[in-house]
Amino acid sequence: MTRKLATLADRFNTLWMENGEVHMLNRRKFPLEEEYVTCSDLESVAVAIENMTIQGAPPLAYAAGLALSMHAKQHEGEGEEQFFDTLEKGVDRLMHTRPTGWDIGYVLDGCMKTAHKVYQQNGDVPEAIRAYVYEQIAEGNRIARDTGRYAADLLQDGARVQTICFAGAALCYMLYFAAEDGKDIQLFASETRPYLQGARLTAKSCVEMNIPVTVVTDNMPAYLMQSGKTNVFVSTADKITMDGYIANKIGTYPLAMAAFDNDLPYYLLGYNGPVKGSYGPGSLTIEERNPEEVLHCLGQRTSVDGAKGYYPAFDITSPKYISAVATDRGIFPARLIYRYHDTVYHSLFEK
Amino acid sequence: MTRKLATLADRFNTLWMENGEVHMLNRRKFPLEEEYVTCSDLESVAVAIENMTIQGAPPLAYAAGLALSMHAKQHEGEGEEQFFDTLEKGVDRLMHTRPTGWDIGYVLDGCMKTAHKVYQQNGDVPEAIRAYVYEQIAEGNRIARDTGRYAADLLQDGARVQTICFAGAALCYMLYFAAEDGKDIQLFASETRPYLQGARLTAKSCVEMNIPVTVVTDNMPAYLMQSGKTNVFVSTADKITMDGYIANKIGTYPLAMAAFDNDLPYYLLGYNGPVKGSYGPGSLTIEERNPEEVLHCLGQRTSVDGAKGYYPAFDITSPKYISAVATDRGIFPARLIYRYHDTVYHSLFEK
Repeated sequence: MTRKLATLADRFNTLWMENGEVHMLNRRKFPLEEEYVTCSDLESVAVAIENMTIQGAPPLAYAAGLALSMHAKQHEGEGEEQFFDTLEKGVDRLMHTRPTGWDIGYVLDGCMKTAHKVYQQNGDVPEAIRAYVYEQIAEGNRIARDTGRYAADLLQDGARVQTICFAGAALCYMLYFAAEDGKDIQLFASETRPYLQGARLTAKSCVEMNIPVTVVTDNMPAYLMQSGKTNVFVSTADKITMDGYIANKIGTYPLAMAAFDNDLPYYLLGYNGPVKGSYGPGSLTIEERNPEEVLHCLGQRTSVDGAKGYYPAFDITSPKYISAVATDRGIFPARLIYRYHDTVYHSLFEK
Repeated sequence: MTRKLATLADRFNTLWMENGEVHMLNRRKFPLEEEYVTCSDLESVAVAIENMTIQGAPPLAYAAGLALSMHAKQHEGEGEEQFFDTLEKGVDRLMHTRPTGWDIGYVLDGCMKTAHKVYQQNGDVPEAIRAYVYEQIAEGNRIARDTGRYAADLLQDGARVQTICFAGAALCYMLYFAAEDGKDIQLFASETRPYLQGARLTAKSCVEMNIPVTVVTDNMPAYLMQSGKTNVFVSTADKITMDGYIANKIGTYPLAMAAFDNDLPYYLLGYNGPVKGSYGPGSLTIEERNPEEVLHCLGQRTSVDGAKGYYPAFDITSPKYISAVATDRGIFPARLIYRYHDTVYHSLFEK
């Protein structure tokens, strides 16, 4: 059997620049519909991030970076002061799209540093920003792959893996490597309302990689753990603090408790680790989105007139519920995840 | 302001016999569509129970009883032995509709005792069964009302009540009485996939009673407790054991844990108490339903070809997570719910 990687394992499959425009897979529709969206200016990328056409903390950060490249191209005739003021306003617009993830700030900061440096060298600023973002995508792919490799080693033969939402490229790599290692594994995806990323993105990625996948509604995973149907919980996080608190897709916290209550491990796909300087749940910002979204499913209204909706997009999980964090630098106890940034410590875990 | 009771507070509003047929509100559609279904034979009632046209442990038990009355009428020309054999086969069919609830067995047992007694007295067996079931509905309404009255006293002024699925007539009465008592209360209903009973039945009942209601998806209630948006969790149970374990709509167990983890009370609407002779989680049967249902929402497919579904309908919650049980006989600690059947104890709690 030849096993191929899922489309979403490589971010270049779903996001790129071409002819000065940003192209992206519409993650609100994929795979029920396979639609690629073309954005011709920064504002349209910002809106695509806001409405989650592109989503996931790293992918949306890369899209923001490419938007800035496009923005620089469209304003490169301006004088230095005005040009950088325009770029800063673009960064500000992009930073106000979604508040929870950390990557977007990191990537845009790198874009601006690149822009200043290349401008002083009389270089091609838009192209330099694009090249920087592409390097970040390649580096993100490497991080996802290395994280997935470490995580695969945590899965036992016979693993029945509960997950939530779409835990990104590292989830694809984890499943891919575990299956290639000859382990009998299955995935159980909670559908993840209101946008159904679990039923769509996660399930599709499994089908592409020939990993058996079962979809359940969001109220079911705790019972699956209770009844022995699943035996390990895996998620990612949109943001990790230095002391191991995480913000992730809403619904992660109760499943972490369910794993704990049933003596099952909960492994976090931690990618490139915690955000320096962040400590405690108070450092995690919870985005609230349009309440109407929770009153609809695939465009159909689910409730009655007179009922309100409420749509917080993330919840917070304490490190006490997290068994281990897989990163591109190895495995860490959640409470010690700050040592990701300490090269002495993590080298103990490196292959 | 005049406050009226919700349609679903009184079971006679949604289930009755007329012209020898059983009429019921379609709870799979209400209130998005208001459709009444007419069943002309026992089999069609059995199917209506199976496909959850009628649902909730007491209502489906009453429907089963009325089906048996109809069945008796359609077979009353048979000789005694054959007649009761026919009735027993009807009971057997109805008992094989849904396995988790307890009420259906109780009501059908009462129907058969009534049938035997009235047959010996040369009475009208079908009419006697119908009258018995109507008495049970009236008694069920009383139980719901008294349970709701006790539960209302548990709610503080300012209560923000998280609930799941539709906790039945007692939930309506609890909210009604609390509001009539002048308490500021609001309900937060999880939508309860795959059938959306929370978004439909619970939200509609609140709107009818002018109780502010907010609908969230099933992955959100734990965060609402975490963030202080809700401060008490209330559910019912399809079955309660003598030692306080419950089977209820899947998703109850993680919310019970979330309440516990956030130091919030979880009050159970226990109606007429535990099932005698049942002890421990092993005495609770978890129904598995058609997996295709979880891959659809309001008729639309939510996932991809190649993904399987899985649909367990209930989960099990330990009494360690339940703060108190409200019944028609007063309030009990979950571990002591067996004393519901002990008239000395419960009298301490009666008004």
